[in-house]
Amino acid sequence: MHGLHLTADLMGCRCDPLWLTDADRLAERCEAAVMQAGLSAVAKLAHTFPASDSGPGGVTATVLLAESHLCVHTWPEIGAATLDVYVCNYGADHSVRAEALMASLLALFDAAQVERRAIERGAIGLAAASP
Amino acid sequence: MHGLHLTADLMGCRCDPLWLTDADRLAERCEAAVMQAGLSAVAKLAHTFPASDSGPGGVTATVLLAESHLCVHTWPEIGAATLDVYVCNYGADHSVRAEALMASLLALFDAAQVERRAIERGAIGLAAASP
Repeated sequence: MHGLHLTADLMGCRCDPLWLTDADRLAERCEAAVMQAGLSAVAKLAHTFPASDSGPGGVTATVLLAESHLCVHTWPEIGAATLDVYVCNYGADHSVRAEALMASLLALFDAAQVERRAIERGAIGLAAASP
Repeated sequence: MHGLHLTADLMGCRCDPLWLTDADRLAERCEAAVMQAGLSAVAKLAHTFPASDSGPGGVTATVLLAESHLCVHTWPEIGAATLDVYVCNYGADHSVRAEALMASLLALFDAAQVERRAIERGAIGLAAASP
C-alpha cells in the first residue's frame, strides 16, 4: 500500500474551455493520459454540475487505476482545477509514471498558477513490513 | 476551490472482511456515510480487483460529491486501506462535515494503525481572490 500521491491546484487555466466543462471528453482525455503514462485504467466516471448565472457548471472526472486513482475537479467560472494522481507502489514503483501523468495533465490545463504537493502514502505499511 | 483534503492510511483493519472485499457494499456504505455527514453524493463507482493466491482481491470505491470526492482503496491480503476525503469550500465551509465523514470511515475499518494528514487545497485561489 506504500505509494505516492501527487496533487496540483491550478488557477488561470488557459486551455480550451471544453476541458473545464465537458466531463465526458475530459474523462476520455484522462484515460488516454493514463495509458500514455504506462498506468492501467480499470474504470472511469464523469459528472457535470449544473450551469449557473456564472456560466457552465464545473465537472469531475475520475479514472480508477490498477495502481489507485486519478481525479480532476474543475471550476470554469474562475478558471480553476484540482488534480490528484495517486499510485500505490504495491508490486512495483509507479512513481515515475505518476509524475509523467501529472505532467501530461498540467500541460493540458496550461495554468498560470500551480500549487503542487507530493505526499508519501502508506509509510506505516513499510514500517510494518520491515524486519 | 479552496478546500480541505483529509487522508488516512490504515493497517491492521479489524472490521468485517467484507468491507475490504465487497466493492458494491463498500460503495453503498460510503454513500450512506456521505449523507450522514451532511455532504452530497452525485455519483459513485466501485471496482473489484481479481483474487490471487493471497485470497480475495482488493477493491476501490469512490463517491463523487457536490463538494469534491471520497475514495477508498483496500488491500485485504495485508488488512490495509487508504481513505481520501476531499471537500472544496466554494460557497460554504464543509470542513466539519469532512471530519465527520472521515471519523465515520475510520470507525468502520477499525484499524490498529492509522496515519492521517490534513492538506489545505487551493490556497492560491484564496490569494487570487483577496484584494
